[in-house]
Amino acid sequence: MRKLRTAFQGELGAFSQEAVRRLMGDRAAVAPLQRFDEVFRALVDKAVDAAVIPIENTLAGSVHENYDHLLEYDVRIVAETNIRIVHNLIARPGVRFRDVRRVFSHPVALNQCLDFFAANPQVEKIPYYDTAGSARMIVGEKLDDAAAIASSIASSIYGGHILRRSIEDDRRNFTRFFLLRRTKDARKPAARVEQWKTSLVFTTRNTPGALFRSISAFALRDLNLTKIESRPLRGKPWEYLFYVDFLGREDDERSRNALNHLRELADFLRVLGSYPRGE
Amino acid sequence: MRKLRTAFQGELGAFSQEAVRRLMGDRAAVAPLQRFDEVFRALVDKAVDAAVIPIENTLAGSVHENYDHLLEYDVRIVAETNIRIVHNLIARPGVRFRDVRRVFSHPVALNQCLDFFAANPQVEKIPYYDTAGSARMIVGEKLDDAAAIASSIASSIYGGHILRRSIEDDRRNFTRFFLLRRTKDARKPAARVEQWKTSLVFTTRNTPGALFRSISAFALRDLNLTKIESRPLRGKPWEYLFYVDFLGREDDERSRNALNHLRELADFLRVLGSYPRGE
Repeated sequence: MRKLRTAFQGELGAFSQEAVRRLMGDRAAVAPLQRFDEVFRALVDKAVDAAVIPIENTLAGSVHENYDHLLEYDVRIVAETNIRIVHNLIARPGVRFRDVRRVFSHPVALNQCLDFFAANPQVEKIPYYDTAGSARMIVGEKLDDAAAIASSIASSIYGGHILRRSIEDDRRNFTRFFLLRRTKDARKPAARVEQWKTSLVFTTRNTPGALFRSISAFALRDLNLTKIESRPLRGKPWEYLFYVDFLGREDDERSRNALNHLRELADFLRVLGSYPRGE
Repeated sequence: MRKLRTAFQGELGAFSQEAVRRLMGDRAAVAPLQRFDEVFRALVDKAVDAAVIPIENTLAGSVHENYDHLLEYDVRIVAETNIRIVHNLIARPGVRFRDVRRVFSHPVALNQCLDFFAANPQVEKIPYYDTAGSARMIVGEKLDDAAAIASSIASSIYGGHILRRSIEDDRRNFTRFFLLRRTKDARKPAARVEQWKTSLVFTTRNTPGALFRSISAFALRDLNLTKIESRPLRGKPWEYLFYVDFLGREDDERSRNALNHLRELADFLRVLGSYPRGE
């Protein structure tokens, strides 16, 4: 079976690569790229077959840049998954915990392990551009007094050794990822799906009560919204795009009615995808 | 009259300082600080009397960090203003436009002047940590082939000379700022106010239709929402805080009824301030 080339943003071993594995199993051949817009561009330009992007984190919030790209590029969301962000302390093989004096990682990761640093005042936090990149660096540079904070997949890829597992302060740290395909290539899953989710984006007419009436299209049909996010509308200061997720499949009857109702009220509406709800 | 010490984030000459001037006139003595959390901390610790923070930009969207701080610190919003972001090309006096080969500024500002760079291929964009800081640097370092992109206030402060005014691509680039006081010191404006706005934050019970019912508290009373923003709720993955602005004053009858109605539905509700609507 031909592998599907799948783009993600970051170094090999980034959390997005764990999401690729979860979403695609071993069907994927990964293509790491530096920026999110490059990931979307690679997909629409057919340089890759699929793409995996983070869309929100339970501590940091939405990845707004990716909300903007979902509107800009002709892609469909075909699946989602939630990955628990587990931070591990990684050193090169042979380095013991008591040798470690410096810990490199992305500032966000360092800030999510403050209890570890409070309990270990002998180690210094050093900001680095990337979590997986810090694991690669401490192994590649053969540092004997240093460790990195990164995923277990980064440790395996770069030949590191995990000194301490799961050193993050808050275990309720999850990132939600989308699997994207080109709109033309998006297909419904063959297997039976327990529950569906649909993502869409719309703008309202700028009149009092417009948002209320818009979401009534779902509430009046007992369709449950799981997320609403606003983004500025370019060229119209203080007007907004709304991104909504609801539980339902675009082409079931209730959802179809809700979407038709919303179309009456909205200036603009686009469905970004219907996909099986993630764990 | 004693000046009010007013904190903002950034260098002297930052756009936040223009907002301070607009909101406070010459009553303010400015206190520039490096980070947003330092600005909030200085206010609650009484190191300053007031603070000015950006909350959203019409091109880039909300400043989410400041939404989080509004909840975390015991402060009130007492005024708002919208500043048009005007980017100027600034050099040291004596440097002519034809001498300029390098232009320094914050990457966001450089990216908002792409038409200027397309029309002037002889100049190179160089990213710098801050807009006002770039104006200070090119004057201080006596650079003869360089310019900065920054506000006109930065040009005056650092003794620059404006070579080209308003070189931004999109003139619909506004940033909305809040003036904050400690909750205890917040007072109603003495002058008559045309229109009031109120900002609040709430969480819903995690049940179907909860957001719809919450905003019905406003819609059923013809109170117009001007903004809704969601942020992740710490410790409850995939639940959200909602920040809402509506037109009305906390203590007028309709608003009071709406807030009481919302209190019935919400797990948590806090009014962040009522203030005169900005221009």
